[in-house]
Amino acid sequence: MSEPTIIDGKATSAAILDEIKAEVDALKENGCQPGLATVLVGDRPDSATYVRMKHARCQDVGITSFDTKLPGDVTQDELLAKVSELNADPAVHGILIQLPLPSHINEETILSAVSLEKDVDGFHPLNIGKLAMKDREPTFVPCTPRGCIELLERYHVDIAGKHAVVVGRSNIVGLPVALMLLHKNATVQICHSRTPDLKECVQRADIVIAAVGKARLIEGDWLKQGATVIDVGMNSIDAPETKRGYRMVGDVDFESAKAVAGAITPVPGGVGPMTIAMLLRNTVDGAKRTCAQK
Amino acid sequence: MSEPTIIDGKATSAAILDEIKAEVDALKENGCQPGLATVLVGDRPDSATYVRMKHARCQDVGITSFDTKLPGDVTQDELLAKVSELNADPAVHGILIQLPLPSHINEETILSAVSLEKDVDGFHPLNIGKLAMKDREPTFVPCTPRGCIELLERYHVDIAGKHAVVVGRSNIVGLPVALMLLHKNATVQICHSRTPDLKECVQRADIVIAAVGKARLIEGDWLKQGATVIDVGMNSIDAPETKRGYRMVGDVDFESAKAVAGAITPVPGGVGPMTIAMLLRNTVDGAKRTCAQK
Ligand SMILES: NC(=O)C1=CN([C@@H]2O[C@H](COP(=O)(O)OP(=O)(O)OC[C@H]3O[C@@H](n4cnc5c(N)ncnc54)[C@H](OP(=O)(O)O)[C@@H]3O)[C@@H](O)[C@H]2O)C=CC1
Ligand SMILES: NC(=O)C1=CN([C@@H]2O[C@H](COP(=O)(O)OP(=O)(O)OC[C@H]3O[C@@H](n4cnc5c(N)ncnc54)[C@H](OP(=O)(O)O)[C@@H]3O)[C@@H](O)[C@H]2O)C=CC1
Repeated sequence: MSEPTIIDGKATSAAILDEIKAEVDALKENGCQPGLATVLVGDRPDSATYVRMKHARCQDVGITSFDTKLPGDVTQDELLAKVSELNADPAVHGILIQLPLPSHINEETILSAVSLEKDVDGFHPLNIGKLAMKDREPTFVPCTPRGCIELLERYHVDIAGKHAVVVGRSNIVGLPVALMLLHKNATVQICHSRTPDLKECVQRADIVIAAVGKARLIEGDWLKQGATVIDVGMNSIDAPETKRGYRMVGDVDFESAKAVAGAITPVPGGVGPMTIAMLLRNTVDGAKRTCAQK
Repeated sequence: MSEPTIIDGKATSAAILDEIKAEVDALKENGCQPGLATVLVGDRPDSATYVRMKHARCQDVGITSFDTKLPGDVTQDELLAKVSELNADPAVHGILIQLPLPSHINEETILSAVSLEKDVDGFHPLNIGKLAMKDREPTFVPCTPRGCIELLERYHVDIAGKHAVVVGRSNIVGLPVALMLLHKNATVQICHSRTPDLKECVQRADIVIAAVGKARLIEGDWLKQGATVIDVGMNSIDAPETKRGYRMVGDVDFESAKAVAGAITPVPGGVGPMTIAMLLRNTVDGAKRTCAQK
């Protein structure tokens, strides 16, 4: 039983951020300054943390970031007006609406209002449609799914002709990553809460993508020997021994999975840092397109 | 070994056409006359036949049909101008561009030019995006996939919690039908030409959708006992004993499959007639929406 490859999202994302920084430097020399706007509604501490991290990474690579904070009781029309303003702002190349939005706001309406050219999250239905279809080019690829694929590719994991099982079918992770694996010629099975025999499905997978949101659901004996495991899950569990009283674990039980998998992402330090790197990647791609049109 | 249920697309589509005729009669009484425009480019005999059949069914149910025939060497701009004209025509509620288009024309450009409100084929990427995403409502559902689901539902085949295997991943059949089965809570596996062990995949399916275009590829011993088989394939094979010299068969070997399947569609007389019925269904749905807005 050999040790598996640990797919290091932290190191990989750091390398990607270096690449992005070099690109941003070159763009700036040509008078193109990439900019990302974030919109945070309400005061969820986790959302605030994510937004803060995004701004910090922007700063690291030289992307200007614009910070919009709106109160939790903002009206949908006020939020739409803000989105229009950012759509029209030539200094902004990407707009990120931090989810979830408060329940009185229609998420679909807001996300569809973001200009397609600035939809760095890639959640616009037109974008998802092009992602889904053969021979169409989406303007932006959603960040977390793109991060998963990037990890597979940078670790030279074969996708074509392999069996991939995606557990989870959300619009932001499970569904788009499944579509991307399909276009890369994997045979893809999409599992979810109504799958009766999840363990048996996972056991047949060469590549497992776990995007469920259930701490350590997938155990080592669910895996095929040598499988590649990408664990998207971020679940906080009680950890009285730590200072904060909790810690983050994935949807995969890392300890038992490590003994069977051929390669596996840890949580934290796997997909998480890749998501932000891909957000910056999308922002720079957007800036490049806009500047080239000038 | 009991006889399987033969899923009769001819009888089912006839029943649907009756329902549509009753709806069209009621709409007309309210001053709403549904209209479908077809656009045929070039002189492929198969395409001409399909278009003719669509017009004949329109006539049966009282939908006005508009027939545009363009020469095979029409320019892309001329075709686009025609599409704009039909987009603007208030008597037209659905526009069907008969595929395939000649190779000098960009299919994506033409299909994206069809007004979303008249895209009765459901091939617009925005429509496919909404079909792909959870909790979004596409304006139109593509006809052949919708016909497959309609057959399953009218024959009371359970979908939720079942294993569905879709063989084929084209934009017009395999991909959308897989997405629809997923939203109906099947666990869905999408197979294609790069799937190494197609037979083993099909063997695990409670529901098989075959949309491959290979005559009788799937044989009886590939099926799980009692599986439901929807055969989308339409392949012509030599048949010197017939007057025409050829006959149509599906992607499934009907004779051997019949002995194992619990329910199966024949070819012809399965999915084929459902496709036209769903096109008329979409046209009437479009007309209803437009007339309601007046
Ligand atoms: N690392 C990162 O950057 C990111 C991490 N995440 C994390 O990824 C995880 C998934 O996120 P997200 O997709 O937004 O979550 P959602 O809650 O939107 O979707 C979860 C999916 O998992 C399925 N599911 C739930 N329970 C089970 C079960 N017992 N067995 C099989 N499937 C199940 C659900 O099925 P059904 O559809 O039937 O309800 C659903 O499709 C979370 O832990 C989240 O924190 C998310 C985004 C970014
Ligand atoms: N009844 C009706 O109304 C309609 C019937 N049809 C019929 O349905 C069939 C499919 O049509 P369409 O989707 O347009 O066809 P496409 O040729 O666009 O797609 C065929 C799909 O089958 C896959 N495939 C090809 N060979 C194999 C193989 N040996 N094993 C596994 N998968 C394979 C291809 O894989 P890859 O992606 O890797 O190339 C592709 O995804 C055709 O027979 C067509 O005539 C189509 C539309 C309407």
